[in-house]
Amino acid sequence: MNATGAVEDRLLADFGARKPAALARVISIVENRGAKAGALLAALHGSTGRARRIGITGPPGAGKSTLVMQLVRAYRSQGLTVGVVAVDPTSVFTGGALLGDRIRMEAIALDPGVYIRSLATRGALGGLSAATRDITDVLDAYGFDRVLIETVGVGQSELEVARTADSCVVVLVPESGDAIQTLKAGLMEIADVFVVNKADRPGADRLRTELKVMLQVRSGSRRVPQDSAHDASPSLTGELKPDVTESHMDRRGSPWLPPVLTAVAVDGTGIPEMLAALDSHHESLVATGVLAERRRARLRAKVAEVVDLKIRTRLWGDAATGAWLDTRLAALESGDATPFDVAEEMLQRSGRLLAGES
Amino acid sequence: MNATGAVEDRLLADFGARKPAALARVISIVENRGAKAGALLAALHGSTGRARRIGITGPPGAGKSTLVMQLVRAYRSQGLTVGVVAVDPTSVFTGGALLGDRIRMEAIALDPGVYIRSLATRGALGGLSAATRDITDVLDAYGFDRVLIETVGVGQSELEVARTADSCVVVLVPESGDAIQTLKAGLMEIADVFVVNKADRPGADRLRTELKVMLQVRSGSRRVPQDSAHDASPSLTGELKPDVTESHMDRRGSPWLPPVLTAVAVDGTGIPEMLAALDSHHESLVATGVLAERRRARLRAKVAEVVDLKIRTRLWGDAATGAWLDTRLAALESGDATPFDVAEEMLQRSGRLLAGES
Repeated sequence: MNATGAVEDRLLADFGARKPAALARVISIVENRGAKAGALLAALHGSTGRARRIGITGPPGAGKSTLVMQLVRAYRSQGLTVGVVAVDPTSVFTGGALLGDRIRMEAIALDPGVYIRSLATRGALGGLSAATRDITDVLDAYGFDRVLIETVGVGQSELEVARTADSCVVVLVPESGDAIQTLKAGLMEIADVFVVNKADRPGADRLRTELKVMLQVRSGSRRVPQDSAHDASPSLTGELKPDVTESHMDRRGSPWLPPVLTAVAVDGTGIPEMLAALDSHHESLVATGVLAERRRARLRAKVAEVVDLKIRTRLWGDAATGAWLDTRLAALESGDATPFDVAEEMLQRSGRLLAGES
Repeated sequence: MNATGAVEDRLLADFGARKPAALARVISIVENRGAKAGALLAALHGSTGRARRIGITGPPGAGKSTLVMQLVRAYRSQGLTVGVVAVDPTSVFTGGALLGDRIRMEAIALDPGVYIRSLATRGALGGLSAATRDITDVLDAYGFDRVLIETVGVGQSELEVARTADSCVVVLVPESGDAIQTLKAGLMEIADVFVVNKADRPGADRLRTELKVMLQVRSGSRRVPQDSAHDASPSLTGELKPDVTESHMDRRGSPWLPPVLTAVAVDGTGIPEMLAALDSHHESLVATGVLAERRRARLRAKVAEVVDLKIRTRLWGDAATGAWLDTRLAALESGDATPFDVAEEMLQRSGRLLAGES
């Protein structure tokens, strides 16, 4: 059913031959959620699962883009290839990367071992998280050793994206506020590695200390037994919500305590330590089985997402259903029917529709 | 099926008698998406549709909370009651309202004609937009004359919330960046009224001029014929995406051109003009039929949301389906099956499940 056509077969062959134009074309199709997106992603599925996926998140202005650029350079100097997908709807307010960074970024972009994709947020409402995850899969299938996913750590969709990585780096700056605010924003829960960036500024030491204290308090109070350590918890809605920090134990049963590093991204200070922490986290993920569990949770979430999309397409794309719903709107407006009644009636229609066609 | 029990009947009676404790209780149930939430919302549906819903959005630090507080005071001085629902996951980074504002906010909170609810973002992942919309319905049903919905204008879920209001105010400050950046962030599309806050700061005049020019350019180039003026466009996925600025015409067929106002929210400067603009926009919404169309689009979106939720609950809440999916995960991991194959198999199961129970 998801069989590809002749054009797609050619595209997939070029993709398999690692032709950059084919990569760009596949990503565009996936980003635009076109009709062929599903078939392409299905065809690439067997090639995924090799890249290490690293999320970089934090509040606007934390220097995420600069840090990502430094990570790219560092991985390249190790001979590793790197794909980057960046989503930041707030960057227009914070000004984004400095001019110098942009020039360096362009130099990186000429390197065939690097591919950078910024996701436009306009027009992608509602589908941005899914598009980001799918593009990560594409970069993985293409063969990049590392895939960096840069998202701003505000807004739900954005945090959801960060959660889907194998390792999640939370970048903060002294100006971000104190550790309690980080906890409130939900960042504490998703962090595998903390980086206090712009560490040459006042307040950096204090923030670092606060983060460490809070992490130790959490670690002490939330210790979970070994046998429940590998529980990821896909929610009812199929959203991926892995139990991160406190469920992630190393071989000896001690929890992974997210390290709190410092960096000055603009001059590269702290980058080697960051790479070491990410490698160490990856080893721990492998040793504890959490890596495999996170991948299973991603696959499960992907199935749920595709099911949802197919149901929506069949149900809401059905002309008869649309016409019927129009006739029910008057009753909704007058208060004679509630959205819950109409939804229930709709479900009766849906069974037929879903089982009917394929 | 959505019949309420004895406890809920009592709660609804107290709610109908406008007891604040009942309001708070209903909102808590709705916010926590509890089992009774659907039944309560269904029971309240007939009482909705009277409040004017006003969204206030903009980047972090634009002074939205202060502006909301001033609007509340102004409406109260007109004898109108006001409900407020505020969602701002970034406020922890920007520091939120100043201490002085908080004290004044608390004074407001003692006024029985005002109800303010801040939505916690932790734990509400994925359901925040829906919770915000439902709480707006609750405040409407309770009888508030105005419901203000404060959201930060970054992140998709947050912009979606702002779109569901009758009128949407976009608050900017000179520090927010120029008008082109506003356009890029998607704020231009949802604004019915622009407010340049902190207008005593350098750059305010320039921002105001830029916004006016851009709005005029858009208005000139995007003029649409009268007969397509009332099209809202609910998308395939049931998301509410009304065609806002350029589809909103007054009686003479000229488009509603969002006014660009200035304000200094901390001292109340510009608030009367803002109220006048909102009243004027409301008159225009009524005269053009756009108000009714926006309400219809909201109802349609609500039906879609309930259908989605019910499908997810039945499908993913089904133990046999969960067990079956577990058996398919191994094939997914090995690459022998793709998420698209498994989703298709799942759809075959779904028809039975959905039509079966009720």
